[in-house]
Order: sequence, then structure tokens, then C-alpha cells
Amino acid sequence: MRHDHVLVERDGAYATITMDRPQRRNALSLAHMRELTAAFEEIAATDTRGVTLAATGPVFCAGHDFAEVAGADHAQARELLRTCVRLMQTVQSVPQVVIARVHGLATAAGCQLVATCDLAVAAHGAGFAAPGGKGGWFCHTPMVAISRNVGRKRAMEMALTGDTVDAATAAEWGLVNQAVPDGELHKATRDLLERATRGGPRSTALGKQAMYAQFDRPEADAYTYAVEVMAAGSQTPEAREGIAAFLEKRPPRWPA
Amino acid sequence: MRHDHVLVERDGAYATITMDRPQRRNALSLAHMRELTAAFEEIAATDTRGVTLAATGPVFCAGHDFAEVAGADHAQARELLRTCVRLMQTVQSVPQVVIARVHGLATAAGCQLVATCDLAVAAHGAGFAAPGGKGGWFCHTPMVAISRNVGRKRAMEMALTGDTVDAATAAEWGLVNQAVPDGELHKATRDLLERATRGGPRSTALGKQAMYAQFDRPEADAYTYAVEVMAAGSQTPEAREGIAAFLEKRPPRWPA
Amino acid sequence: MRHDHVLVERDGAYATITMDRPQRRNALSLAHMRELTAAFEEIAATDTRGVTLAATGPVFCAGHDFAEVAGADHAQARELLRTCVRLMQTVQSVPQVVIARVHGLATAAGCQLVATCDLAVAAHGAGFAAPGGKGGWFCHTPMVAISRNVGRKRAMEMALTGDTVDAATAAEWGLVNQAVPDGELHKATRDLLERATRGGPRSTALGKQAMYAQFDRPEADAYTYAVEVMAAGSQTPEAREGIAAFLEKRPPRWPA
Repeated sequence: MRHDHVLVERDGAYATITMDRPQRRNALSLAHMRELTAAFEEIAATDTRGVTLAATGPVFCAGHDFAEVAGADHAQARELLRTCVRLMQTVQSVPQVVIARVHGLATAAGCQLVATCDLAVAAHGAGFAAPGGKGGWFCHTPMVAISRNVGRKRAMEMALTGDTVDAATAAEWGLVNQAVPDGELHKATRDLLERATRGGPRSTALGKQAMYAQFDRPEADAYTYAVEVMAAGSQTPEAREGIAAFLEKRPPRWPA
Repeated sequence: MRHDHVLVERDGAYATITMDRPQRRNALSLAHMRELTAAFEEIAATDTRGVTLAATGPVFCAGHDFAEVAGADHAQARELLRTCVRLMQTVQSVPQVVIARVHGLATAAGCQLVATCDLAVAAHGAGFAAPGGKGGWFCHTPMVAISRNVGRKRAMEMALTGDTVDAATAAEWGLVNQAVPDGELHKATRDLLERATRGGPRSTALGKQAMYAQFDRPEADAYTYAVEVMAAGSQTPEAREGIAAFLEKRPPRWPA
Repeated sequence: MRHDHVLVERDGAYATITMDRPQRRNALSLAHMRELTAAFEEIAATDTRGVTLAATGPVFCAGHDFAEVAGADHAQARELLRTCVRLMQTVQSVPQVVIARVHGLATAAGCQLVATCDLAVAAHGAGFAAPGGKGGWFCHTPMVAISRNVGRKRAMEMALTGDTVDAATAAEWGLVNQAVPDGELHKATRDLLERATRGGPRSTALGKQAMYAQFDRPEADAYTYAVEVMAAGSQTPEAREGIAAFLEKRPPRWPA
């Protein structure tokens, strides 16, 4: 599938989905969000193990496209936001591990994208903000994702001030997994992605899905669910191979 | 409105509500909680943008007034606690941004107050504790607020030991936004409050309300709600002015 | 009660429950989990105030016993996991404060045990992992406990990579309360446990129970519950003694 402003590259077990609309700071116009969602769905149907979400140009992603938002009526604004949430939910529902590789500013829905990815690595030159708080249109939906990654006081600070949090602080707060020197961003992201995709493909896919399913449940409910998923998982060829490999002290060979 | 032990000062867009019962370490007697609640409600009805919650004397707030608790029967204790929860919920429901400026010890319901404010800055000389854990009356209600700011193991440590956590640790754990040298407390608090109140007044007020409404919801529910709030928000004069100002690269002028 | 591979020692107000199956890296076989659960239930019925969960041998606990899992059918795997959850829920339901004293690797359900204890201290030589992520059987149930201690991105990293997190990082992330030099592990654990058990025994037991009951509730629901527990608690002999001791500036003497 060809996209106007999204690049999809496959390299063996890995794919990179790149937001390539630098002249608009990779702003999430309706068309751009639909292309991104389609790109994730396209990769979802392959045997790709891991996806890097990247961007071209100096800015990672500037959030919604204000040129588009400026003229939107209520129904259009609603459709923009629903499309945005569908993008976020697609990122979390694909069977692949998705990691954000953040080299520049990620603001508003762009910061939400980072918060939504399973993992994220940021260059020291990156920054994170929910700038709606210092404007007239509060970052309500971005904060849903951001506040599930950082503590409440920090979420309120980001939401209300709209100020940019640097990469080191974002790592300390848990919004990203690591902050690394700019020159090491590609290597560090790839290394974490490789480490996150060594498991059995079906096991990892189910694991990812189950994590999101259990995060927000009360602990007892989460256990009720997780026990069933894990018991069923124990009977799969991947579980048998993983356990056999462990007991035989050899690397596993995942069944096709 | 005059209060016996609560000072309310307004200074342009900002107000300061000061607990002024230093001889009782600003303990939250029934009367004191009612005065504080009334002070927040009084400010809520004004066009004040931000409120600093401060205290006089060496202690920020010592929690419930043990002189009063000591003689309380079940119904009276229940009324004290319900009044306390009403105070906390008022702090989070007023349209203003509320920041705690903590210069000394904040214990039990005093620590709960800090945990409840939208933002908090602490002087290095401040301390935070839920001392009921080392006594005979566990800090059940304070821990509701504290455990929504810090991780579970840290919440259990505070709850069970009752020991005082210093300001630097409180900042590291996310109970306060910053710990600063004592001499910089006023300036740092004011600076954070100003940065948190640059947005459109209605947008910020709705943003604050929505944050508390979505925090505890499962992520999908939070999105369902946030999309509607944000879509409606896009049609307001403040959103239009904010977006126009951004596109025209000028400061916004919020409509009256 | 005698156990084959669990040591129960009582020392005044404290008990130590030690996993003593070092030849199996203290793996949680069905029998071992049942013994551990029985040991906690045995201590629960005594006036012991605090329990240290410890282990012999170089490894703290290696999780489920793969020799047993390897041959388990679906029903047997399910019973293993249900027994494991019962152990975890027993640890959190006993009236004593339970602290993990972690000197070596704690992996999979072993890491879950640490995440489940009320408090945890780790030696610098300890490590924490959910290795199912790099195998074929994802650590679904361990991640329920682990992800309630650490942030979401960090939980995803542990779950997907299966890599070992060192003790200092575990403390920074909130999975354990402290990381200390190996030679100070016993002293630091005992010190924290003593500080966590100074309160009235009934008050502490109710406090622990209430913490787990309120953690996952929406804030308003948590308050509704906590107010009732705390109001009733105010009328107990322990609350009266604690308040009297505080007002009289003397140590409390908890009623028998």
C-alpha cells in the first residue's frame, strides 16, 4: 500500500512506520491519521515482530493540524478526535511490539502517540508537552494516554502548564523508557525493540493484548482474567517449546 | 466573608488561602475545615485564576485536631471525616488551579490536603507523613489521596510506618511537583501557578475537572468521555482564539 | 506445623517465613505454594506483628517450577495458577505486615511475590524479571502484581523483554522500597519492618486490609469506603489509647 505521507519499511522481522510530513511538523490531519492507522493495520497482518514509529524532519509530531482544526465544526472536530483515538487503539491492538523513536518535539496528540506506544526511547534533544493547557483548547484526549504513564501531580503539571518536559525528565517520570544521546537514538531503540521481541510471536502478541486488558482492572479482576489467559497459554506449542528450550538450556525455535 | 482562622487574600488574578491557626498547628477542626471549604467556595465564584493554599506558623497542617477527635463519638467522628472529604472534593472541584505551598510538616489530613491540591511545591524544610500508622487510628482517608500520587509500595511504607518523608523524596515520588530551598518557596510556587494559569479560563477550568473525571476510569471509558469534552471544547470562543493566536503567532486574548 | 521446604521461625513479635528449596531455586511447585500459603495462614492466627519473607540459597525465587509446568495439561496449569493467586492473596490478606527480604534473583512468580508483599527490601545483588516475555509462556499473572507497583512503560519493558532489572532500578521504579548493600539487607529489612509495626495491632491490620480494598477504586468510591472504616476505627480502644498517648506525649500501650 502506498501512502502520501507515511513511509512503511520492512527489514526482516522489523518494520518502521515513519511520519513523513515534515513541512507540517507531522501534524495529525485526518488524512495523516488515517494513513497511519492503515499502515499499522497493514503491518498487523504480516509476520513482522516489531514496529518502530519514527518521524522525519526536526519535529516528531506536533499533534492535531491546527489549520484543519481552525475551521472544524463540532461534528468535524468530533470525527478528528474519534479518528485519533482509533489510531491510538490500533497501535495498542496490533500484535506487534510498537516502540516510539522520538528525536524531536512530541506535542499534544504527538505526545499522546508516544504515551500510547508499548515502549519509547527519546533522544536528549526530544521534548514532550500537552500545550493545550496554555491555550484555549485543553489536551483532554492526549492526557488520557499521558496520565496513564506518569504520576498524577506530574500529569496535572503537564496538562495545566503546557510546558515542555525534556527527555531526561520524561524518562524519570516513566513517559519514555530511556533518554539517550541523540547519536545513539537509532541503536538504543533498535536494541530495546530486539530485546522486546525475542519471545514466541503468538505469546508476545497475547501478552501485549493482555497487559492492556488488565492494567485498569481491579487487582482481583485482573487475576481472574490473567489466570485463564495464562492457563490456556501453557498449552500452546510456543509455551512447550519455550519451556523445553529452558530445561534443555538451548535457544528456543519458535514454531511457524 | 470573614473567617476566624483562614485568611483570604486576592491579588489580581490570584488568591491565597492561608490556614492561620498556628497555635493549633493549623489542625483541621470541624470549624477550620468548614472555614477552608467556605473560603474555596468564595473564591470559586470569582474570576480568580489560581489559588495558593498556604499556612502560617512552623507547621503546614497537623491533620485532624486530636483535642476534638479525642472526645468524638462515632457519629461525630463520621461527621469530621465527611467534612474533611467535602473539603478535599471542594479543592478539586473549584474552577481555579490550586497549588499547595508547603513550608513545614504536613501530616495526616494535612498531607492529604497537599496530595489533593492540583499542584504542590515544598520547601526543603517541609515533611510529609501519615502518622496514624504508628498510632492507633490508621490514616485511612489521607491514604486515599496520598496513594493516588505515589506508587503502591511507597504508599504502604508511608501508611504503615507513619514516618516523615522529606521534601526531596516527596518530589521524587510524585507527591509534590518540586522541592526547593526554603528561601525560594514563594517564588517557585508563584512561578508554577502562573505557568499553570496561562490558558483560557474556561478551558483550564474544564480541563481540571476532566482530569479528575478521567483519572480513575479504564482507558477506553476515559477516551469515550474525553472525546466528547474536547469536541465540544473546540467550538468555544477560547478555543478559536487560542488556535487563531497560535496560527498568527501572537499571544491569545481570552474573551471575557 | 512442619513443612518440607518452608521454614517458619518466630522471634517475639516477628516471624520469618523462609522458602527453603534451594536445590530447585525455591521454585513455586504446587506443593511449595501450598506450604507457603499454609505458613502464612498459620502465622495469621497468631499475635505476630510482622512477617519477613526470605529464601535460602543463591536465588530468591525462580517462579513456577518448569519441571512441573512442562507436563501440565490445561486443568493442571490452571490449578497451578489459581494456587499461585491464592498464595498472593493470602500474603495481602493476613493481618500482619509482610516484607520481602530479597537477596538474589526473583523471577516470574518469584518477582510477583515481591510485588505482592506489603513492603520489600532488596540487596544490591538482587534482580527482578518477568522472563516469560522472552520465552513462549508470557508472565500474565506476575505482571498483574508487578504492574501495580511500577509505571506502565516500565511494566511493558519488563513484560516484553524479560530482562533483569537490578535492585537500584527496582527501588527507583517503586517495585521495592529500598536497595541496600548486601551486607545490610537483614538489618535494613528488620528496621523497616519494625517501623511498620509500631501501631496498634488491630489498627495496622485493618489499615493494611483497607489499603488493598481502596487502591483500585475510583477516588470517590474509595472515600465513601474509607470514611466508614476510619469513623468506626475512631471508637476502638487502640484509637483512644493512641490519641491519649499523643496528647500526653508518652508512648502508647496497646490494649491486649
